[in-house]
Amino acid sequence: MNLSALLTSAGINIALCALLSTLYSILRKQPSNGKVYFGQRFAQVQLKDQFSLDRFVPSAGWIVKAWETTEEELSAIGGVDAIVFFRIVVFWKVFHNFFTSSPLSFSLSHYIRLFSFAGVICICVVLPLNYFGQPVHHKRLRAESLEVFTIGNIKEGSEWLWVHCLALYGITFCAFTLLYIESKSIAKKRINYITSNRQKLGLFTVIVRAIPFSGDSYSDSVTNFFTNYYSSSYMSHQMVYLPSTVRELVREAEYMYNMLKSTDVSQCGPSMVRCGLCGSSEKPFTILSRRLYSSDSDDDDRRGLAEDLREQECAAALVFFRTRYAALVAAQTLQSPNPMHWVTDIAPEPSDVFWTNLCVPYRLLWVRKIGTHLGALLLMIFFFVPVSIVQSLVHLERLKEKFAFVRRLSNKRNFIFDMVTGYLPSVMLMLFLYAVPPVMSTLAALEGPISRSGRKISACHKVLLFMIWNVFFSNILSGSVLESIDRIQSLTDIPLKLASGVPSMAVFFMSYVLTSGWTGLASELMQPFVLLCHWLDKTIFLGKGVVSYDPLTFPYHTEIPRILLFGLLGFTASVTAPLMLPFLMVYFFLAYLVYRNQFINVYITKYDTGGLYWPIAHNAIIFSLLLTQTIVLGVFTLKKAKYSSSFTTTLIICTLLFHFYCRQRFF
Amino acid sequence: MNLSALLTSAGINIALCALLSTLYSILRKQPSNGKVYFGQRFAQVQLKDQFSLDRFVPSAGWIVKAWETTEEELSAIGGVDAIVFFRIVVFWKVFHNFFTSSPLSFSLSHYIRLFSFAGVICICVVLPLNYFGQPVHHKRLRAESLEVFTIGNIKEGSEWLWVHCLALYGITFCAFTLLYIESKSIAKKRINYITSNRQKLGLFTVIVRAIPFSGDSYSDSVTNFFTNYYSSSYMSHQMVYLPSTVRELVREAEYMYNMLKSTDVSQCGPSMVRCGLCGSSEKPFTILSRRLYSSDSDDDDRRGLAEDLREQECAAALVFFRTRYAALVAAQTLQSPNPMHWVTDIAPEPSDVFWTNLCVPYRLLWVRKIGTHLGALLLMIFFFVPVSIVQSLVHLERLKEKFAFVRRLSNKRNFIFDMVTGYLPSVMLMLFLYAVPPVMSTLAALEGPISRSGRKISACHKVLLFMIWNVFFSNILSGSVLESIDRIQSLTDIPLKLASGVPSMAVFFMSYVLTSGWTGLASELMQPFVLLCHWLDKTIFLGKGVVSYDPLTFPYHTEIPRILLFGLLGFTASVTAPLMLPFLMVYFFLAYLVYRNQFINVYITKYDTGGLYWPIAHNAIIFSLLLTQTIVLGVFTLKKAKYSSSFTTTLIICTLLFHFYCRQRFF
Repeated sequence: MNLSALLTSAGINIALCALLSTLYSILRKQPSNGKVYFGQRFAQVQLKDQFSLDRFVPSAGWIVKAWETTEEELSAIGGVDAIVFFRIVVFWKVFHNFFTSSPLSFSLSHYIRLFSFAGVICICVVLPLNYFGQPVHHKRLRAESLEVFTIGNIKEGSEWLWVHCLALYGITFCAFTLLYIESKSIAKKRINYITSNRQKLGLFTVIVRAIPFSGDSYSDSVTNFFTNYYSSSYMSHQMVYLPSTVRELVREAEYMYNMLKSTDVSQCGPSMVRCGLCGSSEKPFTILSRRLYSSDSDDDDRRGLAEDLREQECAAALVFFRTRYAALVAAQTLQSPNPMHWVTDIAPEPSDVFWTNLCVPYRLLWVRKIGTHLGALLLMIFFFVPVSIVQSLVHLERLKEKFAFVRRLSNKRNFIFDMVTGYLPSVMLMLFLYAVPPVMSTLAALEGPISRSGRKISACHKVLLFMIWNVFFSNILSGSVLESIDRIQSLTDIPLKLASGVPSMAVFFMSYVLTSGWTGLASELMQPFVLLCHWLDKTIFLGKGVVSYDPLTFPYHTEIPRILLFGLLGFTASVTAPLMLPFLMVYFFLAYLVYRNQFINVYITKYDTGGLYWPIAHNAIIFSLLLTQTIVLGVFTLKKAKYSSSFTTTLIICTLLFHFYCRQRFF
Repeated sequence: MNLSALLTSAGINIALCALLSTLYSILRKQPSNGKVYFGQRFAQVQLKDQFSLDRFVPSAGWIVKAWETTEEELSAIGGVDAIVFFRIVVFWKVFHNFFTSSPLSFSLSHYIRLFSFAGVICICVVLPLNYFGQPVHHKRLRAESLEVFTIGNIKEGSEWLWVHCLALYGITFCAFTLLYIESKSIAKKRINYITSNRQKLGLFTVIVRAIPFSGDSYSDSVTNFFTNYYSSSYMSHQMVYLPSTVRELVREAEYMYNMLKSTDVSQCGPSMVRCGLCGSSEKPFTILSRRLYSSDSDDDDRRGLAEDLREQECAAALVFFRTRYAALVAAQTLQSPNPMHWVTDIAPEPSDVFWTNLCVPYRLLWVRKIGTHLGALLLMIFFFVPVSIVQSLVHLERLKEKFAFVRRLSNKRNFIFDMVTGYLPSVMLMLFLYAVPPVMSTLAALEGPISRSGRKISACHKVLLFMIWNVFFSNILSGSVLESIDRIQSLTDIPLKLASGVPSMAVFFMSYVLTSGWTGLASELMQPFVLLCHWLDKTIFLGKGVVSYDPLTFPYHTEIPRILLFGLLGFTASVTAPLMLPFLMVYFFLAYLVYRNQFINVYITKYDTGGLYWPIAHNAIIFSLLLTQTIVLGVFTLKKAKYSSSFTTTLIICTLLFHFYCRQRFF
C-alpha cells in the first residue's frame, strides 16, 4: 500500500464521519428520536414538537456542550467509572496530542509539559530520520510506499538508532509518571466513593451463598448461623427464591400486557428494570406476604403458602447487618472450615445484583468458570480464520504472482484496487469484531458473577485479550508468515517476527484506525442500529415496543478494550512508525468529544464499580510498554545496534520493576 | 548400563547402608554421643556411663521403637508438621508398597486395598509385557540391557499398549482418592491445631509493619492508631528495637563467657535460642526498664534513656488484643488506604518469629523478593553445568566413538567401568545437591519472611523447584540431547523428547534412588557431619563449643523436596519402567523407619506451621501425575497407539479438573 491508498482510505472515512455526524446533528433535533439520543435525561428533556427550519440545519452545539462538561458533572452522571473511562481516553489523548491544552489544563497541565516533548520527538525527529534513513532516491511523495516512513528504512548498523532508543526512554518514563499520578488519584477517588456513600444499602449487606441445608429450611440455617456467630451485629435476612412457574406466568402476562397497550412514557426508565428478585416482578412477593400476614386468611392456607415458599428457597440469602464494619468483616473472613460452604461476599447495590446467578449452586461455579474460559479461548483461536482472509487482502500485491485474477486487478492499479487493499480489509475485520463483545458478555454471565458490573469487568477482560491477540498479534504474525511464506519455527523467533512485522504492518493499522476508530466513533454517535429498531417499532409495530429497548448502560466492555487497543497500537508505532500518531491523535480527540456527548445524553448509569476498570487499563498500558520495548529491541537486534539493544534491555527491567511496585502499592 | 552395572551399584549401596546403620546402632549407645543422637530428649535420657559389652554389639532396637510409635505420640513430639511429613512418606510408600500392611492398618487399611491393586499391575503385568514386547532373542538375564524392561521395548502400533493406559488410569484414580482423603484429614487436623490451642500467644497478637512516623515516635503512632480504630479490643503493644552497638557488645561478651567456661549441660537446649528481640539477649531490656521505672534514678537519666530507646525503634510492633477474633480481623483487613502502610499479619509463635526481618523496611521487601527469586533462578540455570558433566559419564558408551581413552576403558568392560557409569554419576550429583538447600535457605531468609517457619516453607518451594528441574528435567533433556546429538528445535518437541528420554533414563534414576535415597537415609541416620563436629569439639577444642551446635529443627526444606522428587520418579517410572518400583518401595520403607527414629530422638521442634507443607506436597503430586500422563501420551504418540493417546488426553483433563476442585475445596 502506498500513500495514495492510505489517502483514499482516509478520504472515505472522513466523508463517512462527516456524513454521519451531520445526520446526527439533524436527527437529534427530531422529537421522535428523543428516546434514542436522550435516554439519559429522557424524563427531563422535552423537545418541542413544532415544525421549524432550524430542526433540519446541521449544527455543532453538541460539540460545545460536550467540551464544556466538567469532571464533576460527569461524575454526577456516570459515577467513578465514567471518570476512569475518561482518564483512560485522556491518558492516550494527551500522550499523543500536544496541541490541545486549554480545556484540560485544569488537571493535566503538568502532563502536557511532559508529553508535548515526547510527541514532538516522535514526529519531528524520528519521522524524518526514518524517511532519510537510506540514501535512496525518493519517488514522488504521493506514490511513495508508506514503509519508507518506518524504522525499517534505516540502514543496518546506523548510528542514528540511538535517537530511537532515547525517544523510547522519554516515552517510557513519561508513561511511568503519568501512570503513577493517575493511579494515585483514582485510588483516592475510589476511597471517596466508598466513604462518601455512608447510607448505601450494599455496604450493610452480605450475600451468602452455598448455605448448607440443616433443619427445616435454608432460612432457619441462616438465622441460626448468624444469630450464633454475629449476634451483636446481625439484623435480618432475605432469602433468594427460585423463579417458579406461577411467577413465570405472571411475568409473561405482564409482558403481554405491555405489548398490547401502547407505549407509555411514564413506564420507561429504570423502574421497570429494578423490580423483582430472580428476574420476576415484585408483585408476587407483595401478594404472598400480604396473604401470609393478613388476619382473615385461615391457618391451612398460610401453612400451605409458607411450605410453598420454603420449597422455592435457593441456597442463597442477603444478610443485613447493623454496621458497615460488621458486614465487611463477615464478607472478608472465612465462615466455615469447608470453604465451599457459607461463601460470603459484600453485596452489590440493588440495581447491580445479578439475580439469576444467585440461584446457581456454588459448587458448580468452578466448572462454569473453566468452561467459559475454555469457550473464550476457543473463540480466540478460531477467529484466526477470518483474520487470515483479511490479511490475504492486505498482502494482495504479494499474492499476485500466484493468482491470475489478482494480477489482472492489480495491473489496472486504479481506485478499486486501492479500495480493496486499503479499505476493505479493515471494514471486514471490524464487522467480524462486532460479533465478539456480545458473545463474551454471554460467556461472562455464564461464569456466574453476582453483580452486573462484575459481569462487565469479566467481559472487558475477555474482550481485551481477544482484541490484543486477534487484532494485533495474529495480524502481524500471519502477515509476516505470508511475507516470508514459511512457518514460524520456534518461540524464540516471535520477537524477531514481531520486529520485522510491526513496521510493515503499521500501514494496515493506520487504515484500521481510520475505519474502526474514526468511522466507529461516528456510528457510535449516530447509533444506526438503535435508530433502526426505533423506527421499525414506530412504523411497522406501531409503538408496541417489539424491537426497541430501554436505554442501555455504557458498554464499558466494548469501549475500554478498543481504547486500550488503540493505545497499544500508538505505543508500538510511536518509535517504529510515527506516521500513525497523527491519526491516533485525531481519534482520541474525537473519542473525547463523542463519548462525553454519549455519557451526557444517551446512556443511563444504573451501577458503578467505583473505578475497578482502572487496574485493567493499568495492566494493559504496562503490557503495551513492554511489548513496544520488546519490538524495538528486536528491531535493534535486526539492525545490529549493540548499545541501543542493551539500553533497551535495561528499560524492560525498569518497566517490570515499576509494574511490581505499582501492583504492591495500588492493587 | 546393563543389569550387572545396576547390581554393582545396588551392592555398593546396600553394603554402605548396612555399615552405616551398624555403626549407628553402636554409636548411639555411647554416652558421649548422646547430644548428637538424642537432641530431642537430651534432658530426659541419661545413658549409663559404665562399660559393658552390650554397648558395642549392633542391635535393631531402634527399628522396633520407630515402628511402634503411634501417630499421637509423633504429633506430641513434632506437631502437625511431623504428621504431614509422614503422611507424605506414607502416601508414596503405600502407593508403591503393598507388602507391609499390618502396622499401618490403623489408619490406612482402605488405601492398601486400592494400591496393592495398582502395584500388582505395574510389576506383574506391565513389566513382563515390556520384556517380551519385541520378538527378539533375549540375552542372558545378567548381561541384559536394562532398557528391555521399559516401555521402549514394545514395538510400534502394538495392541498391548492399552494395558499401560489402563494401568495409568488405575494409578491416577487411586491417587485422586488418596489425595482427597488425605487433604480432608489434614484440613481437619489443621483446624484442630488452631482451635485446640486457645491460649497461644500468637493468636492474640498482630505484627504491624510499615508504621508511618507521626508525632513523637512510632510507639505513639501505634497507640493512637489502635486506640482510635480498635478501642474495644486493643490491649497493649511492644515495639521492636534495632540491635544497637551496646547490645552487640553485650551479646559478644555473653558469647565469650560461654566459650571460656566449660560446656554445662543445663545451659543447652531451647532456652538459649528463644531469648531476646532482634537477636540480642533479653537482659538489656530488663536493665533498661528497671532503670526507667526505678524510683531512685534521677529524671535526666530517665529522659535520656527514653530518648535513646525512641531512636532505636523500628517501624514494627507487636500489638496485643483482648480476643483472638479481634486479632484475626485486624490481621486480615486492610488498615490504610495506602496498602504499604500499617501492614498487619497474625503473629507467629514467640519462638517462630524471625526477629531480624521485622526491622527490614517494608517498602524494600518487594525488591528483595524479586532479587531472591532471580537468585534462585540463576542458581537453577547455572547448575546445568555440573549436571551435564554427570550426564556425560552416564552416556559414556555413546561417547566412546569420539574419545580414545573412553574406548580403551570401555574395552576392558570391567568392574571399574561399571562403577564409573553406574555409581559415580549419582554420587557426584548428590554431592553437588548437598550445597543447594543451605543456599536456598539463605535466599529465603533474605526474602524477608516474619517467621522461621515461613522461611522454611519458602526454601522448601525453592528447593523443590530446583530438584525437579535439575534432577529430573535437565538430566532427561541433556541425556536425550546427548543421545540424538542434535539440539532441541522447539518447545513442542519437549514432550516427545521426554517420552523418549524417560524410559532410557530410568536406569540412571534407579541408581540415583540407590545412592541418594538409600545411602542418603543411612547417612541421615548416622549424622556423620554432626558427629564429626561433636568429636572435634570434644577432642581438639576440649568441649568449648567452637564447632558443635545446639540440636536442630527438622530440615523440612531438604527432606520434603527429596521425598516428593522420589515420588515424581516413581510416578513417571510406574508405567514406563516399572523395574524402578521395588527400589523405591524399599526406599520409602526405610524412610518411614529412619525419619520416625530421627523425630523421636534427634531433632527438636521449636515451631509448627500447622500443616502448611501439605499444599506443597499436594501440588507436587498433581504435577507428577500430569507429567506422567504427558510422558505416557508422548510414548503412545511415538508408538502410534491412537486410542490409548486419546484416552490419556481425557485423563489429563480429569486431572486438571480434580486439581481445580481441590484448590477450591481445600486451599
